[in-house]
Formats: sequence, C-alpha cells, structure tokens
Amino acid sequence: MLTIHDKTFSSRLFTGTGKFSSPELMQQAISASGSELVTVAMKRVRDNERADPTLAALSELNITLLPNTSGARNAQEAVYAAQVGRALLDTNWVKLEIHPDQRYLLPDPTETLRAAEQLVADGFIVLPYCSADPVLCKRLEEAGCPAVMPLGAPIGSNQGLLTAPFLDIIVEQASVPVIVDAGIGKPSEAMAAMEMGVDAVLVNSAIASAQAPVVMAQAFAQAVATGRAAFEAGLGSVTQKANSSSPLTGFLDAL
Amino acid sequence: MLTIHDKTFSSRLFTGTGKFSSPELMQQAISASGSELVTVAMKRVRDNERADPTLAALSELNITLLPNTSGARNAQEAVYAAQVGRALLDTNWVKLEIHPDQRYLLPDPTETLRAAEQLVADGFIVLPYCSADPVLCKRLEEAGCPAVMPLGAPIGSNQGLLTAPFLDIIVEQASVPVIVDAGIGKPSEAMAAMEMGVDAVLVNSAIASAQAPVVMAQAFAQAVATGRAAFEAGLGSVTQKANSSSPLTGFLDAL
Amino acid sequence: MLTIHDKTFSSRLFTGTGKFSSPELMQQAISASGSELVTVAMKRVRDNERADPTLAALSELNITLLPNTSGARNAQEAVYAAQVGRALLDTNWVKLEIHPDQRYLLPDPTETLRAAEQLVADGFIVLPYCSADPVLCKRLEEAGCPAVMPLGAPIGSNQGLLTAPFLDIIVEQASVPVIVDAGIGKPSEAMAAMEMGVDAVLVNSAIASAQAPVVMAQAFAQAVATGRAAFEAGLGSVTQKANSSSPLTGFLDAL
Amino acid sequence: MLTIHDKTFSSRLFTGTGKFSSPELMQQAISASGSELVTVAMKRVRDNERADPTLAALSELNITLLPNTSGARNAQEAVYAAQVGRALLDTNWVKLEIHPDQRYLLPDPTETLRAAEQLVADGFIVLPYCSADPVLCKRLEEAGCPAVMPLGAPIGSNQGLLTAPFLDIIVEQASVPVIVDAGIGKPSEAMAAMEMGVDAVLVNSAIASAQAPVVMAQAFAQAVATGRAAFEAGLGSVTQKANSSSPLTGFLDAL
Repeated sequence: MLTIHDKTFSSRLFTGTGKFSSPELMQQAISASGSELVTVAMKRVRDNERADPTLAALSELNITLLPNTSGARNAQEAVYAAQVGRALLDTNWVKLEIHPDQRYLLPDPTETLRAAEQLVADGFIVLPYCSADPVLCKRLEEAGCPAVMPLGAPIGSNQGLLTAPFLDIIVEQASVPVIVDAGIGKPSEAMAAMEMGVDAVLVNSAIASAQAPVVMAQAFAQAVATGRAAFEAGLGSVTQKANSSSPLTGFLDAL
Repeated sequence: MLTIHDKTFSSRLFTGTGKFSSPELMQQAISASGSELVTVAMKRVRDNERADPTLAALSELNITLLPNTSGARNAQEAVYAAQVGRALLDTNWVKLEIHPDQRYLLPDPTETLRAAEQLVADGFIVLPYCSADPVLCKRLEEAGCPAVMPLGAPIGSNQGLLTAPFLDIIVEQASVPVIVDAGIGKPSEAMAAMEMGVDAVLVNSAIASAQAPVVMAQAFAQAVATGRAAFEAGLGSVTQKANSSSPLTGFLDAL
Repeated sequence: MLTIHDKTFSSRLFTGTGKFSSPELMQQAISASGSELVTVAMKRVRDNERADPTLAALSELNITLLPNTSGARNAQEAVYAAQVGRALLDTNWVKLEIHPDQRYLLPDPTETLRAAEQLVADGFIVLPYCSADPVLCKRLEEAGCPAVMPLGAPIGSNQGLLTAPFLDIIVEQASVPVIVDAGIGKPSEAMAAMEMGVDAVLVNSAIASAQAPVVMAQAFAQAVATGRAAFEAGLGSVTQKANSSSPLTGFLDAL
Repeated sequence: MLTIHDKTFSSRLFTGTGKFSSPELMQQAISASGSELVTVAMKRVRDNERADPTLAALSELNITLLPNTSGARNAQEAVYAAQVGRALLDTNWVKLEIHPDQRYLLPDPTETLRAAEQLVADGFIVLPYCSADPVLCKRLEEAGCPAVMPLGAPIGSNQGLLTAPFLDIIVEQASVPVIVDAGIGKPSEAMAAMEMGVDAVLVNSAIASAQAPVVMAQAFAQAVATGRAAFEAGLGSVTQKANSSSPLTGFLDAL
C-alpha cells in the first residue's frame, strides 16, 4: 500500500485522461488500469460547467481526481489554475505542472518550487512534476510536497527512463514517495522504474495512444505490481563475468 | 500459446534448475513460475542413477524436462551428453550448449552448428543456445532446429539485453520461435524482450539467486505474460519531442 | 574561436586545478592541455595570502583564472565566495557552484539562479554549473549569464554523458555557449560532447587522476579540437539497416 | 606501431574505398586519413583491367591495398574472390567478408571460419570480418588469421559500438590484433574503441558520406591516434558517487 499525505492507494499506477479517442475508451482503459488516482487538466475542469463528457465518464469510476495545471507557463498561472481546480472539483490536491516551452514541455524548476511554496501555504496538497534533479526534489520535499514527480523523458515521447541514474539518487535521498511521471512508453519501463524502488509511476500517452488501450492499461497495471514485487523480493546483483547456472565440473571429463 | 515442434506451451517462461539453495526451494520456485519447460544439466541426470534429489523434486511437477549439454566444450562432447540425456530421461529434446571458455561461458558458433546438424540427423529436437548472431540463427534454423536460443548477456551475469539490436534482427528474420537465453537479471528485462517480439525467455540465475526465489519466480511469470500482451496490444512509437497529453490551448491565455 | 562575454578562446577545453599530486604536475598538465581558462577553488585563492604553490604554478601559465565557489551550500555563501575571489584575484569572472549535498555534489537549481541574478547585478561575469535542465539553462541565460555549464554526470565520477538527451535540447535552445562541466571521464566522451555541438567542455578529475596526467591532458586537447572539427564537417546520419560501402552487384553472380 | 603478420603500420586507422562521390575525393580523403591499409572490393579489382579510376587514384598513394571479398555469400565464393584479388593485385593479403543477407550485411560465422581455414592453407594472410563473438574470434585466430575484425554495428549504419561489452571480452582474450570493422559513425566512437584497447579500426562510410570527407578523415585520424594515447596513458576509474575535484573543507564554514 502506498500512502501520500492522507490517502492510501493499493495501485501504484497513476494515469491521465489525455489523448484517448473517446470518453468511453478512456473510461474503460482507466478502469482496466486499476488506477485510483487520475490526473485531469484544468481545461477539462472548466468544461465541466458545460457537462464535459470526459468528466462525466470519470465520475462513474471509483477514483480520486487530481487536477493538474498543465498549460501554465509560470508560478502565477499555475496557482490560478490550481485555485480553479479546487473550486470546481472540490479537492485541495493538485498536480503542479509548469512548462514554459511548448516543444519539449519540460518543467521550470524555480517557478515550480515557487508555486509549490505558495500552494502549500494556501492549503493545497501539491504533487509537483519536475526534472529528475535530486536537489530540486529535496527542495520540493522541504517545501511541504508530500511526493515528488520527476520525469523519465519528455512528456508523451515514450523514450523511457532517460534519467535513470538520477532517479536512483532521488530514490536514495527522498523521504517522500517518488512518482516517475512522463516519458514511460512501455510496460517494461514502468516495471524497471518500480524495480529501482520508485513508489509509483504515472502513465498516460503510452496507454491512450496504444493500438489497444484497454489491453495496454492492464499490461501497465501488471507491470507496476510485478515490478514492485520484484523490488521487494530483492533482485540479484550484476556481474561482468558469467556465473554458471549448471554444474560444470567433472561429468564430461571422463570422456 | 507457443508451439515448438510438437509441444505447446501456455507459459512463455522457461526455467532452469541450477543455483537453488535446496531442491525444495527449486521445486517451489519452478512451480510458482508456471514454467512448463525446465532445463536440467546432464550431470544431474547421471546422478539420477543415485536418486538425485533435484530430479526427484522435478518429477513431482507437471513439466517437460529439457536435458542440456552444459559443460560440453565441443560438438563431440555435446553429442555424447545429449545421448546420455536421451537414454536416461527418455526424451529426444535437448538444449544444446557448447562453451569452451569457462570465464564467460559463451557459446561456440561453429561447434554448435555442427552438433546441431548431427543431433537433428540422429532424431533429436535441438534447442541451441547461441550468440545473438542473426546469420548463425538462420543457419541453425536451416539445420532443423525448431527454435533458437540467442543470449542476452553472459550466463548468470544478470546484465540484461546487451544484444538487443541484434535480437531485433533475429526476431525479424526468424521463421522459428526465438527464445532469449542467458543474461536476463530482472523481470523488466524479460518483459522488454517479450515487448520486442521474442517468443519466450529462459531464466535461471535471476530466480535462483534472488533473495526470495518464489516471489521472484512469480514476478518473472507475470513479466513474461504481460510483456507478451503488450507486444500483441501494439506499443506506441517513440518521439524525440514532447507530445502533450493534456489540452494546452487557450485556457490560461485569458489570465 | 569561442567567445564568452569579452574573451576569446582558441582552445575549447577548460580545466581545473584539483586532485593533482603536485603543483608541478598540475602546471605541466594544464600547459599540455592548451587550456586558456582554468578554474580554481576559493580555498586556494585564500591560501594565496600565504603563497599557495598552486597559484604560484598557475601564475606562470598564460591562462585566465576562473575562481569557483566550490563548497558553497547556498546563494549567500556563493556570493560571498565570489566576492572573495574578485578581491583576491582581481577578476570579475566566476564559476558559480552551489552543491548542498556532499555525496553527489549536484548543483542546487534555485539557489544557483538566485546567486546568478545577484552576482550579475553586482557586475560579475557568471558561468554557472547547473543540472542539464533546459529550462534552467534558459533562465540562467535570461539572468545574464554569458554561458551555461550543464553537467554530464556527478563531479569526478567519470561516468560520461549520462545527460546526453537533455544536452541535445540545451544546445538546440541556447543563445549562449554551452560548456559541459563534470562527469567527463574519457577523451572520447569529451569528443562526443563536441560532436553534439556543445561549445566547450571542462575536464579536471579525468586528467588529474589519470596515470599519466600530461599525456591525458594532450589527449583531451586533441579530442576536443577533433570533436569540434567533426561537428563542423557534418556527421553522417545513423540508419537501422546496413548500408553497403562496397559494390555488391554483379561480380560474383557469374560464378 | 601496430604489426600484423609481417607489416608494420604507424596509423591505426584503416579505411575503405566505397561511397565516395569521386575518385579524386576518395584519394584526398584517404591521404588525409593517414591510413596505410586500404580495403578495396574485388569488383573494383576486376575493373582494373579496364583501368578503373578508383584503382588509379589509389596507386598514387603510399598505401597497402587490401582486397576484400565483399559480395561473397559463402566460403566458396569468398575463396574464389580472394584468388582473383591475389592474381590481379599481386598480394596474398585479403579481407574476408561473407554476408549472405543483403539487408544487414552481417557476416556468416561458420562460412567465414571455413573460408579462413582454406585461405590460410592456400598461403593467404587472412583478415576476417566477423561478429563480435569472442569464441569465433578465438577460432579464427587458431585458424591462423593474424588479426580479427569484429563488427561494432551493421556495415554503413553509423550506429557505433553496439557490441562494446563483447569487444571488451575479445580484447581481453585475443592474442592477435583486434580491429573494429563496421558501424563506426563518429570519430568519438573510433576513439572510444581505441580507449577500450582495440588495436585498430576500419572506417569507410562515416568518412565517405560525411559532408566534408577530407576534414572528417583528418578527424578520424586524430581520434584514433588520441584514443590510443589515452589508452596507453591509463584512464581513471568510474565511480557512482561524486568525487570532489575542488577542496571543500573548511573555507566557508567561517561564514
């Protein structure tokens, strides 16, 4: 079981709502994923006022909605978006995303920390999307974030765990859950993250843009659960030389 | 379902019997793995005559035993070992392993092909352990092997899929099942191999030398099944740039 | 020729002064490197008052000294260290380093940006050591830094270009010179950075702790110059398939 | 100096003659590379009878021509091609290449070994292009080849040292010079191979298809010479943690 602030999750796979070809498919894929925390863009939240079909579909699932500030280019915009989310969705949880550059959608470290400090002071439960920067993650933790969400690769790129050596350091140093967010493109990459000891992963594009999103959602669910089990079971060490798994001695020498 | 020659397997995880701390633990781990094809060294087969506890433990499982020629340094020794295995275990299946060098246990390509030709002519069903060499795999297939077993990394090294670019070519060119054998150290690596389209993996050391072999065996079973499902579901493509999973347009511009 | 602010450098290899076994060896290695910009820790600068042999050895070389703030744990300490350096070495150039964690010596992004802003306002020419974070690099550039110094891997680790995918983005987006600082352990890694289009590299440990520092300094000098030449000459593209370099058609078909 | 059989080479960069846009450019690039051993396809050798401009251009350089059997699909064709080369070029040196598959041009291990044995028996000095298979390299060496030429990646793919972990083993075990042939796309990759301890590299496509082949040839020449120097100078070791290159203690604690 994973605990973030005052919520407990039995699934360590978090998902998103973007890029699905229809609300129905989104609903089915999220349901198949077993995800209990699902992030949704403020844009959709506002559409709620006009009965957004995405939100309608989500409301039928037994999940916690996590409004995100996607589209915010600085701390001010992010704080405003978080407040809109709180008002409309009646939750003080927020996934903080600030990405001034539209080409790679990489997060802004200083604006993210600034916004996190303001939002925590304003009573928000802040889950920040951030670079895989161990010092920044520590600063966000010190600012009161109950988890950190370092990236594996640019959003939606499916490039996997490009930042693995730094994720290792973040896991080693963090006192709060570490959630790998962005870049994971294959179930094996989600599993590899879990084997490294991260606490959860967030996957959206790799499910939504798969040829069979529902099957892929199940695959990610299994991958994450299995990766956690493997981490807890204790993986063997890597060696440079071979290490015989069959008894070699003696038998054939009698020839 | 995977078919090799005239046998059908519902599990795509094959296992071995070496390195377990006790026959009981081996039995439990193999059972937990769901593996239906388990390789066993000739050395143990001969011990059978003296009621080897490993073979006794294996006989209680519903599995196919696959004698291997581990320890053979050339084709002649391998052929002899295969014949011993056939006589004692009453099976014409054999996992062909020829590794003259004891440090890295890497297979000998020409002796392996030579032994495969002889054994096929002698009525054996030959599954050859070999380099991740696409041309060699094609030659072994032409020699009558009903599957090929290219390596990921040196036996027992847990280094994973060092040969991935060449496994991709082997998968593309093979007309028989491709089984990645040796080097897989983590469930995520087994899953990654399955996502690439290989037909099965053989894992021994990574299970046997885990801190909790039974849990690890289950993790590998899940990883292999899930990796296959993800392959069949169709993975998304990798891009260099970000690819927004949340709607970015408009919302915040009104600020 | 590389220009940073108002200085022009014919060598794109910058070096440091730490870890050499003697001031004489340091002097010889730096001379052999051809480096025209050499960073020196404030600690040594203060020792200057007591005739530090390192500084004495450096003063005999035709180089620009770049005081660094190594050891600073926050912006305040870094600013103080920079001021000490300016007073003692009579230069307003400073390499800004803030690393609160002693285990990995990774830079603090927000404190680095804060210190950069203060130092620029105070008339310093600030070269900031930073994460390979494209947004942070852009912010440092906007703050008035005439170059950015993203890391390849933790200082002194010799792990190479772990951050390569992000360095590519930084190079693409930067309007100021990009200098890869920290982590480079082999001349081939320095060359690979130059082939990617970075403007310069800073190497210290890999030279100072080589078995033959003077020869290694020359090797890095050649690697950097050659990597730049290769970048300017235009590298060929990478393909997944083979691409024959010999004429295959016809000849042997006549057999 | 590198010695292969009875010839000594001051340059460890070998080159090829394919893909250049003109014989003049080829001549200039090879001259700039400093290469003393240049491989040429039999196809061109036969054209010699009709005054092939490539051969004419090569004859003006102070180099050793190394006929290759490119295009041969089996041992028989390769032996024939080698004999043609010997007759026309008056040399018993041959680069043995057998690649039955036209898509990836990967070498055939067993046919290569068979042809090597025949050609050695027939008095040839055989340099075999082969997989990065340590056991095969040992067999080729035992067959009398005075050097082995394992591949880095498919010919002309510019993918670099995909086989690095196996090249390390080959270098460790070989008693003859190891020449990395095929796949090297950047000077830094040639340098990295030399830093690993290989004795020479063969580069063709990366020079011939560069935008500026003559400059690129010089870059490869420098890269190879520098990589060898770095190898001989003794590279530092890689660590997981940081390793301070500046003195951190004390200075700032007085603040």
